[in-house]
Amino acid sequence: MEDSAPRPIRSVFAWLVGASQVLGLLAVVLTGVWMGHYRGGFAWDGSAQEFNLHPLCMVLGLVFLHGDAILVYRVFRNEPKRNVKLLHGIIHLLALIMSIIGFVAVFDFHRAGKIPDMYTLHSWCGMATLVLFCIQWVMGLMFFLFPVASSWLRASYLPIHVFCGLVLLVMAIGSCLLGITEKLLFSITSTYSQFASEGVLANILGIVLVCFGVLLGYLITKEEYRRPPNPEEESLSVHFKTLTEGGSSTF
Amino acid sequence: MEDSAPRPIRSVFAWLVGASQVLGLLAVVLTGVWMGHYRGGFAWDGSAQEFNLHPLCMVLGLVFLHGDAILVYRVFRNEPKRNVKLLHGIIHLLALIMSIIGFVAVFDFHRAGKIPDMYTLHSWCGMATLVLFCIQWVMGLMFFLFPVASSWLRASYLPIHVFCGLVLLVMAIGSCLLGITEKLLFSITSTYSQFASEGVLANILGIVLVCFGVLLGYLITKEEYRRPPNPEEESLSVHFKTLTEGGSSTF
Repeated sequence: MEDSAPRPIRSVFAWLVGASQVLGLLAVVLTGVWMGHYRGGFAWDGSAQEFNLHPLCMVLGLVFLHGDAILVYRVFRNEPKRNVKLLHGIIHLLALIMSIIGFVAVFDFHRAGKIPDMYTLHSWCGMATLVLFCIQWVMGLMFFLFPVASSWLRASYLPIHVFCGLVLLVMAIGSCLLGITEKLLFSITSTYSQFASEGVLANILGIVLVCFGVLLGYLITKEEYRRPPNPEEESLSVHFKTLTEGGSSTF
Repeated sequence: MEDSAPRPIRSVFAWLVGASQVLGLLAVVLTGVWMGHYRGGFAWDGSAQEFNLHPLCMVLGLVFLHGDAILVYRVFRNEPKRNVKLLHGIIHLLALIMSIIGFVAVFDFHRAGKIPDMYTLHSWCGMATLVLFCIQWVMGLMFFLFPVASSWLRASYLPIHVFCGLVLLVMAIGSCLLGITEKLLFSITSTYSQFASEGVLANILGIVLVCFGVLLGYLITKEEYRRPPNPEEESLSVHFKTLTEGGSSTF
């Protein structure tokens, strides 16, 4: 479907989306290089190589796929809403599966190595993010994909769902940064302060994740990039205008 | 000036603002207790007690005061815009002074103890936040308090200023969480995993900071809590409607 936005807005938007994908993929690649090259690769046997799946799955699932699942509402803002909703739900499902694999990997590694669980700030923030992400996904499924709630309830829940989605993306990125710091201080305590290449690479990964989050936040919240009102969908969809005084965006 | 919003919206808003202040002050108090009780108090002599000023100043300046400086646009949304702008700038100035004291304290401590600087992800994120915060403050001063720029430039810069303000608050909170993790892993490595009271207190501080950020984010971005349009100010102020297609908020 033809984009109704003026050409300069479309062009800037396309560049920003492209940049966000480069940053997101770069974060996944840097995590893979860190764990694959510096930390001995991957396995599923309770060893440190099983732990290595944890950062990779979390960056891929809770950050990159989670961010892209939100972004589809902006990228495909002129496509039929039902298709975009379905894509949003499917990418979130992939994100959820990756996150659960990452979650199991770290607890399996801790159990095998008799390492205590859930005492660090990273584990508290990460667990809160994953639990809330699961709740958000189930609620989204019930309210919007298989609407069991009334139109009024869906309309009331929509702005909360949108706000929580962005908060959870930020929390996921924050938890990753805490995990990076924790892993470096556990693994390369003596050489980190001498700017060991592993430490610099992991720090750069952290900065790339922050940039990905800022760019996604900009693309998601900028008024011009929101889904334009579509009169044909008005009777079927939930519309922000009915919720907020003078608001103009649809989701 | 009388608030034009309906009574239930005013009431929920007041409770949420109250809760944000409780969380913000709680974060400052918890940081004070952590540094004062567990880490030996405060001094200005290059010792570990001088370092202890760093977390306290950063939580007070870059998080609590920074958040409140943004919040004044919502709390005093029916007061004359000039007064609110002035208050916004003054609280930000206090935040900047506190942050610079905190910044000097940690570098002074590192110099005295011959501890390397700027190698951790916390230091990279924290430095980026502080530098961008300084730039944001100077730009805000030039554009809005002593307007040296044209109306068109001010109007173009306003949404960027607003977006960056919220991003910097999130980055400040993220940097604090990284600092908490770093400090705990440097100081109580052996007892952290046994849920030592210091570790639990610092983790709770981290969660309180996250909750403060989420609540501030909600209060700042919610459409109903934005400054209502004021025809008397229209000719003097920058109005979002001229910037974004169909937007309704003023700043």
